[in-house]
Amino acid sequence: MSEQPSATDGLDIDAANRRAVARMIASRPRLVDVARAGDVIPGLSPDLLLHAGPPIEWSRMSGPLRGAIIGALIFEGRAADAAQAETLASSGSIRFAPCHHHATVGPMAGVVSSSMAVWVVEDETHGGRFFSTLNEGYGKVLRYGAYDDEVLERLRFLNGTMAPMLAAALAEGGPLDLRALLAEALHMADEGHNRNKAGSILLTTRLAPHLANVSGVRADLVRVLDFLGNNALSVLNPVMAAAKAMATAAHGVEGSTVVSTMARNGTDFGIRVCGLGDRWLTAPCPTPEGLYFAGFSAADANPDIGDSTITETAGFGAFAMAAAPAIVRFISGTTRDAVAATLEMYEITVAEHEHFTIPALDFRGTPVGIDIRRVVELGITPRVNTGIAHRNAGIGQIGAGLVRPPMTLFEQALEAFAERYGLVP
Amino acid sequence: MSEQPSATDGLDIDAANRRAVARMIASRPRLVDVARAGDVIPGLSPDLLLHAGPPIEWSRMSGPLRGAIIGALIFEGRAADAAQAETLASSGSIRFAPCHHHATVGPMAGVVSSSMAVWVVEDETHGGRFFSTLNEGYGKVLRYGAYDDEVLERLRFLNGTMAPMLAAALAEGGPLDLRALLAEALHMADEGHNRNKAGSILLTTRLAPHLANVSGVRADLVRVLDFLGNNALSVLNPVMAAAKAMATAAHGVEGSTVVSTMARNGTDFGIRVCGLGDRWLTAPCPTPEGLYFAGFSAADANPDIGDSTITETAGFGAFAMAAAPAIVRFISGTTRDAVAATLEMYEITVAEHEHFTIPALDFRGTPVGIDIRRVVELGITPRVNTGIAHRNAGIGQIGAGLVRPPMTLFEQALEAFAERYGLVP
Repeated sequence: MSEQPSATDGLDIDAANRRAVARMIASRPRLVDVARAGDVIPGLSPDLLLHAGPPIEWSRMSGPLRGAIIGALIFEGRAADAAQAETLASSGSIRFAPCHHHATVGPMAGVVSSSMAVWVVEDETHGGRFFSTLNEGYGKVLRYGAYDDEVLERLRFLNGTMAPMLAAALAEGGPLDLRALLAEALHMADEGHNRNKAGSILLTTRLAPHLANVSGVRADLVRVLDFLGNNALSVLNPVMAAAKAMATAAHGVEGSTVVSTMARNGTDFGIRVCGLGDRWLTAPCPTPEGLYFAGFSAADANPDIGDSTITETAGFGAFAMAAAPAIVRFISGTTRDAVAATLEMYEITVAEHEHFTIPALDFRGTPVGIDIRRVVELGITPRVNTGIAHRNAGIGQIGAGLVRPPMTLFEQALEAFAERYGLVP
Repeated sequence: MSEQPSATDGLDIDAANRRAVARMIASRPRLVDVARAGDVIPGLSPDLLLHAGPPIEWSRMSGPLRGAIIGALIFEGRAADAAQAETLASSGSIRFAPCHHHATVGPMAGVVSSSMAVWVVEDETHGGRFFSTLNEGYGKVLRYGAYDDEVLERLRFLNGTMAPMLAAALAEGGPLDLRALLAEALHMADEGHNRNKAGSILLTTRLAPHLANVSGVRADLVRVLDFLGNNALSVLNPVMAAAKAMATAAHGVEGSTVVSTMARNGTDFGIRVCGLGDRWLTAPCPTPEGLYFAGFSAADANPDIGDSTITETAGFGAFAMAAAPAIVRFISGTTRDAVAATLEMYEITVAEHEHFTIPALDFRGTPVGIDIRRVVELGITPRVNTGIAHRNAGIGQIGAGLVRPPMTLFEQALEAFAERYGLVP
């Protein structure tokens, strides 16, 4: 550690890190509503689209992000087809901003427009509201950059039919404790990022009686129960919003070297650090390694994309892989690799989670709170489980796998931290 | 092995065991219907009550079994209260028979009367229909010997309201592959006997859209979705019927030393062996060791009871504990014990299951097909996960834990096998 910033001039980094992670662990996000994004997300307007990852302009956006923006503009009625949407998107009259700047997180492209419905999550401990869209399921979906009629029809069903029913069901049933639900799902072999089978059916069975009680049209109820229960990612988006609540609780703690954001826009991988305010450190996105669906290979893959790394930031996802050995059939590797992934992450984290425990490790808490000092010192970057998008707009998911953010992000962050706090390197 | 029966006179026990277990593994039980027991269970009549375990007369029955019989007679309208029910039960005008003699299995007391609804499971591979009642959930329930108004009201709801809706939902949705569902649940940290959280919500989410489509009264749909989804044992009974299908496929294979039945009536533990036909070997039931609910202790416990050992007989339950490390919080022990339980069971079984695999053991198949020769030779009896009933009628569940059948059962079975096949010991 001799070449790294350490406690000087009253700055106690370790204490700040403990404070940051304690706030993260104490966060208790609850699912309270589903509402129209434009009505609830602060600062969102019809001319603003949110996207995953750090800030990026249209000209540098990757295929899947462009595809999702095209789809969103068609969905909003701002463009009749892809060509019109591209013209509009590149005209300068549509602005783009990271989801993360608006208390929002989105998987993959993460595009959010005003008319889309979002889950609303409240942090009971620290206050604040956090948002994420409704998950569209697997295959050809907007978040992977697809935008054909099938994608748009599904969006209209999700936002027009399912969203008001979910809102009414939550109003009847009351807030749903997402921290407790995720803790339970981790005991049912989910890791909360790429494997959300248990959490999704837990969510479905919790909401089902209320959906039945509030539904108007029987066919809608049938379709919603079928869609929620058969989409093994139903819970991913609310869980991501929960993780955003946790990370936000730590973000801004002065003097802390804990990572509060990891996110990718398909071009750049960006991180933010608790003690560095809203400054992004960025580097080119690596491409995940993993398993491809039939007919696709690594040559088709887009560089890593999505805000779903908020799960690892908050101490689960790949960090909890030891809880989810069956995931290796989906993202590659062996059971031993899954356990090793979690064990390795203890090396670069500040604490063990009080609420998220891993039965296979004798109920040890998940590793939580990535310390950029340890990442650089040990040469171990965080592990991330992820989906893989086709590099071209309009296609969709082609696989799933593993990725790590570039080490340069953490080196940059450490330098910025030293500079910010006047530490001699 | 020198003192044990071995292949003589053309008898190839190993080949017979491979055949028996291959039939067990090939069995593909599907959930096809819910119907009135008296209409579908062969040989059931209003004067006959089925119960768990080997045959037993009223005078030797334990408290919880008597309690369940009292409750069933009141439920059937044959008695107005417990006193009348006891008089009737001991009068000789009511007959008792093991569930196992009627292609049926019941958890704990396992009492089945004509008016009760049962899940109907068909073996797609070998044919045959198998039955089990609807699970009542935790706490004060008939199967643990409780019979007060709360218990009877719930029975009326299950049999009068939920059963016809389940039947209509299955008719609409078509057969549900229980082997596939259980295989999935084992990847979600169930073991299929005492831990059925994942399987129960998988069952609920599969049936929910069909329930919504067939339901008449909204309040009934709400209650059924709530009951099924919040009962972590909803799937236990159909899974037991599925295990009964598997075990039955092996039962009767000539020359096989594989166990085809393990069952307890609260007084006697009984086993049957594939190559010994319908003969029961019995011995006094041991009392489980485990964790007790607040206010109860081992002094309150009834000896072991129930047909749910059919799960271990078919190669899951305690045999699949390595898949379900979180279960140790419920039945006692550590994660290491859970893995050790499964590893130990490989020692006394004939095969590894092709369809039921354990991610934590690198997707190794569960140990399946208990060989009485190995049990006796190695001195290792099968492990069983179980609930614990209060020893008195009318109270209910007081804990959960682990138990092993007495070694004498397997020694008796081996002697009977040697005698039956004319082997020199």
